[in-house]
Amino acid sequence: MKTEVEENIVLSTPVAGDQYPLHPLMNARKSPRAFIEQPIEPEKLRSVLEAARWAPSASNIQPWRFIVAAKDRPEDHERMVSLLFEGNRIWASKAPVLILSVAQVIDQASRKTNKFAFHDVGLATENLVLQATSAGLAAHLMGGFHADRARATFNIPPEYEPVAIIALGYEGGMEFLPQPLLERELGPRVRKQLSEFVFGSIWDATSTVVENERKKILNRTINN
Amino acid sequence: MKTEVEENIVLSTPVAGDQYPLHPLMNARKSPRAFIEQPIEPEKLRSVLEAARWAPSASNIQPWRFIVAAKDRPEDHERMVSLLFEGNRIWASKAPVLILSVAQVIDQASRKTNKFAFHDVGLATENLVLQATSAGLAAHLMGGFHADRARATFNIPPEYEPVAIIALGYEGGMEFLPQPLLERELGPRVRKQLSEFVFGSIWDATSTVVENERKKILNRTINN
Repeated sequence: MKTEVEENIVLSTPVAGDQYPLHPLMNARKSPRAFIEQPIEPEKLRSVLEAARWAPSASNIQPWRFIVAAKDRPEDHERMVSLLFEGNRIWASKAPVLILSVAQVIDQASRKTNKFAFHDVGLATENLVLQATSAGLAAHLMGGFHADRARATFNIPPEYEPVAIIALGYEGGMEFLPQPLLERELGPRVRKQLSEFVFGSIWDATSTVVENERKKILNRTINN
Repeated sequence: MKTEVEENIVLSTPVAGDQYPLHPLMNARKSPRAFIEQPIEPEKLRSVLEAARWAPSASNIQPWRFIVAAKDRPEDHERMVSLLFEGNRIWASKAPVLILSVAQVIDQASRKTNKFAFHDVGLATENLVLQATSAGLAAHLMGGFHADRARATFNIPPEYEPVAIIALGYEGGMEFLPQPLLERELGPRVRKQLSEFVFGSIWDATSTVVENERKKILNRTINN
């Protein structure tokens, strides 16, 4: 028989900010697979890209580039869809805007590698995603696409590397999802506990910042 | 003699959202070099880390780790400061919290490289930074530190790679900055134009999303 504590653990679906309170934008952000075909207002799309523009980056290099394909130019959109792995194509083709993010991994002048290029594209992309969230949109990042074909398709220079394809649009239309995807969509959101990735004086040692949390987990175990 | 348009260009210091409107959090985020020593409330720090926790990542691997050094444990804080390049040490040592971000670049079980590791650490870090901003804090990311010494100091396993050190605290005390840093602090914030990094059908081709902007720039040139 399950104890009350165990029941609570099973019943509670993790939501963003379940451990500590978050800004509403962080709470609201998620990566849906269900989009309606309604186009994105151009001014919203511009603000989403403007948000990426203002991200920080190492030496302010701004190594991010974005190739934007919207449904109002069907040939562009279809071409971007064709770069996706099939599992993503099923749902992501509905999204009215698909954006390929690209990282400048080598400086053209100095020929030096920028080890922060992918990291900084990540910073800019999260700005983009959160600005989208604030505008009532949703974004879903995909690593599952043919990067080499993307390079050939868009004529991406060797100093740059395709990173992710971002599906952007209004959420909805879950009824169109095939059963396995629907289950994933309705399933719980899972994350590591803070104590699993926040360390103190040394690797793998609990930080005092999250010590209470670990105590809570320990107490829970003891109570069981 | 300068035209009125040129005067305006010179006088206007770029601010986040100067081209298109942004969510207030994006407007407010910046990377100051002036911090006061006031400690960060533990609950704020936990929410900042919780924000990182809820970032998206490729296959939900969550490849981010954070080593947190706060001033209330002076030996931890000083050790983190000692890893910074000297140019950063001058100002970042004031920040009450320094966080080393680390990426899991190789999966322990499969031994496969995760090419999205740095990118996903970037996603989580921008969540962290924006949650900090919403709490009245400021964050400044630094790539300028001795990564190899960081690995040795914290006993970081070979599957992981140090990424950045994040200075976190309340902004203020600009009077302590040496002159060159003060000038940088008060100088304009510079970013590429959208048309320089947002492309349409092919690499380097203007996206229709930002076409108007390019027209505006062209008109401005013609008017001069």
